[in-house]
Amino acid sequence: MVALPSVDAARDSRVRELTRAHVFTSWSAQAEIDPLPLAGGEGVWFWDHQGRRYLDLTSQLVNVNLGYQHPRLVEAIREAAGGLVTVAPSFAEESRAEAAAAVAGLAPAGLEKVFFTNGGAEANENAVRMARLHTGRHKVLAAYRSYHGATAAAIALTGEPRRWGAEPSIPGVVHFWGPYLYRSEFHSSTPEEEAERALRHLRHTVAAEGPQHVAAIVLETVVGSNGVLVPPPGYLEGVRELCDEHGILLVLDEVMAGFGRTGAWFAFDHWGVRPDLVTFAKGVNSGYVPLGGVILSDEIADTFAHTPYPGGLTYSGHALATASAVASIRIMREERVVENAAEVGERTLGPGLRDLAERHEVIGDVRGLGVFWALELVADRETREPLPADRVKAIHRACVERGVWPLMMGNRMHVVPPCVITSEEAGEALTLLDEALAGATA
Amino acid sequence: MVALPSVDAARDSRVRELTRAHVFTSWSAQAEIDPLPLAGGEGVWFWDHQGRRYLDLTSQLVNVNLGYQHPRLVEAIREAAGGLVTVAPSFAEESRAEAAAAVAGLAPAGLEKVFFTNGGAEANENAVRMARLHTGRHKVLAAYRSYHGATAAAIALTGEPRRWGAEPSIPGVVHFWGPYLYRSEFHSSTPEEEAERALRHLRHTVAAEGPQHVAAIVLETVVGSNGVLVPPPGYLEGVRELCDEHGILLVLDEVMAGFGRTGAWFAFDHWGVRPDLVTFAKGVNSGYVPLGGVILSDEIADTFAHTPYPGGLTYSGHALATASAVASIRIMREERVVENAAEVGERTLGPGLRDLAERHEVIGDVRGLGVFWALELVADRETREPLPADRVKAIHRACVERGVWPLMMGNRMHVVPPCVITSEEAGEALTLLDEALAGATA
Repeated sequence: MVALPSVDAARDSRVRELTRAHVFTSWSAQAEIDPLPLAGGEGVWFWDHQGRRYLDLTSQLVNVNLGYQHPRLVEAIREAAGGLVTVAPSFAEESRAEAAAAVAGLAPAGLEKVFFTNGGAEANENAVRMARLHTGRHKVLAAYRSYHGATAAAIALTGEPRRWGAEPSIPGVVHFWGPYLYRSEFHSSTPEEEAERALRHLRHTVAAEGPQHVAAIVLETVVGSNGVLVPPPGYLEGVRELCDEHGILLVLDEVMAGFGRTGAWFAFDHWGVRPDLVTFAKGVNSGYVPLGGVILSDEIADTFAHTPYPGGLTYSGHALATASAVASIRIMREERVVENAAEVGERTLGPGLRDLAERHEVIGDVRGLGVFWALELVADRETREPLPADRVKAIHRACVERGVWPLMMGNRMHVVPPCVITSEEAGEALTLLDEALAGATA
Repeated sequence: MVALPSVDAARDSRVRELTRAHVFTSWSAQAEIDPLPLAGGEGVWFWDHQGRRYLDLTSQLVNVNLGYQHPRLVEAIREAAGGLVTVAPSFAEESRAEAAAAVAGLAPAGLEKVFFTNGGAEANENAVRMARLHTGRHKVLAAYRSYHGATAAAIALTGEPRRWGAEPSIPGVVHFWGPYLYRSEFHSSTPEEEAERALRHLRHTVAAEGPQHVAAIVLETVVGSNGVLVPPPGYLEGVRELCDEHGILLVLDEVMAGFGRTGAWFAFDHWGVRPDLVTFAKGVNSGYVPLGGVILSDEIADTFAHTPYPGGLTYSGHALATASAVASIRIMREERVVENAAEVGERTLGPGLRDLAERHEVIGDVRGLGVFWALELVADRETREPLPADRVKAIHRACVERGVWPLMMGNRMHVVPPCVITSEEAGEALTLLDEALAGATA
């Protein structure tokens, strides 16, 4: 465990004051928030200016896969900062080339080219554009209960209320329902049934939209912010088949699920499914420098061999960002970070969270893999009625008071620590969660 | 002048090879490019792996305002890398707060809050969303011959061919013609006439679209990639008046023009016009770390005091990026970089480029201010027929051979060096351009 942080009340209030006066905050009613200033972090811990330390179960926004201030990653960024950091996309640059090779090297054979962006939203924007131009088709299918980013095309893909404020957005996006056994749209009672019925529904939706007009089906391989929804066996394979049948491209959004989160480099590795386009961000460099991108199949890349690709950005392949990705992938490999995430998930987090569910009535469902878990909090196990917001908030407060910080999304507690978390730290987190749940629901 | 770079042919070919195999490049036909690998840079110089050094008149994509590897900025990034670099927007963080205060401090009074993004496209995306929600109106007017970014809403604003491959994009964007005396849409013969006629045209367009349906007029204060079009006297003031008359918001895109490029902190400072929303990126930190944002008027920010703003991104206010912005603004102020850009433009670049036009028939027009200039290259001064692409390319090649690298956009040569360029370096650039133009048009 890291040393106790120091107290700096003056700094704390100065940061709060400047923030209130000048920072306009994402997804918030500006006058109704008073965000806690963070002061530092190390490994799976972060701390504030008031001398309080928290065991992190958020990875911030599920992106700090290597944990806070990983010394080798910090050193790599410092070294890269001394070289050329801003190189326009019209030039070549060593880190950019190496990062593209490293990322492509993690993808299945036949996905060899990488288009870099600043983040996941831009990655999904470009994936849609590539899919439309490659197929010459216009419609894109995406799932309800999904989040793909907040720029106009990415938010159009998004299948949850965060989309509403941005509508009308780009035309041609059609939403369908994905598998979610705990609250099944298809009245299923087993994962197999849910997979089969969700596939049938998708097949019907494709037919109703006209398969010859559908450019792509876009899916988060494991749905993230909308509930850590792990696809049931057979679902992704079935989607791949459906795509092949109709010449539809499969775009898998690995922005949150990729780079170790599920205990694999890419979540689709669990099901052996080969996508046509992969979007990534977050874990690619643990967010130390903004970076995202799209991995393209050779067929799609070839469409733009002699026809210019109509898209770009100033920082496509930013040298500091790509240098940090090269270092991050090397560190993950050498320090067995992906394997660690798988092991901690299988041996400690999974069993421990299921054990919590045995002991706390408020937990209606536990699901996940690797270091990517959600507890569904319910007012009633029978009706599965979501726990009201004030009770969810009370549980979060009880956790924070005990020094553990989970990510609350709607009526769910997401347990998504950095991939470097040890079994001991995971065990400590489980104990604190147990106490907090007992305290808040007593 | 910096030392001669070393030759590393093996590295050069390795970077080229990896790039060809794995990097998918912005706005390009992938098989038809062979981008030059850059190896390093310092001040206004960059160099390749083949021992060749270039005096930079591009600032890469008009973003490296402080020049390459500014030692104080590099040091600030190295220091910030040792602290907490990834902090979710739901927390507060010192660099983020300080950067927001510093950026707002450069804007007119009454624009106090800053929403950070990763770049200019996302900034324009969010400005449009804020304007629509604040006004409750749907239409947005933007200019032909503009570039606002390549995500779906930003590319919808864009008024040039780069938009075509992304259509249909978001609905509700209407394009009008801005002032451009050299190729006037309004048959004007003086700047005053052009300003007046362009304003009349804009007024007609607003009337034809229904002023009560127009949320915002979006303009690059000085049009960048589409020709360094400096607004004639009275134009921006007139647009502001028109907006006020109808409750339309004025969004000024300062992504390229801001932070010293025109010899002012913001280009609108030249005309004393107060926008409602300002978008920025590039020069805010010279692109050392991806960063952009929107500065909001207090009225617009207040709309989201008790109503959540429906937009966000993982890296909104990234700590490494904002730390570099704080350092960059401090350096620009302490080293008088903005004043330098103004002086070099007025004393050396402006007169020198006009002198080149006297001597080279191929230059049809010279325009700009600060370190933001364009030479319009023509086949015939009378007809103003644009110089054909192959002859433009030959001029660029002649420049590059002489060790000076201008930015070619269509039939124009943009002369947009880092804002730190000295009069001596500008003089050297002018001499090399003179030789290159003589050589290529002989």
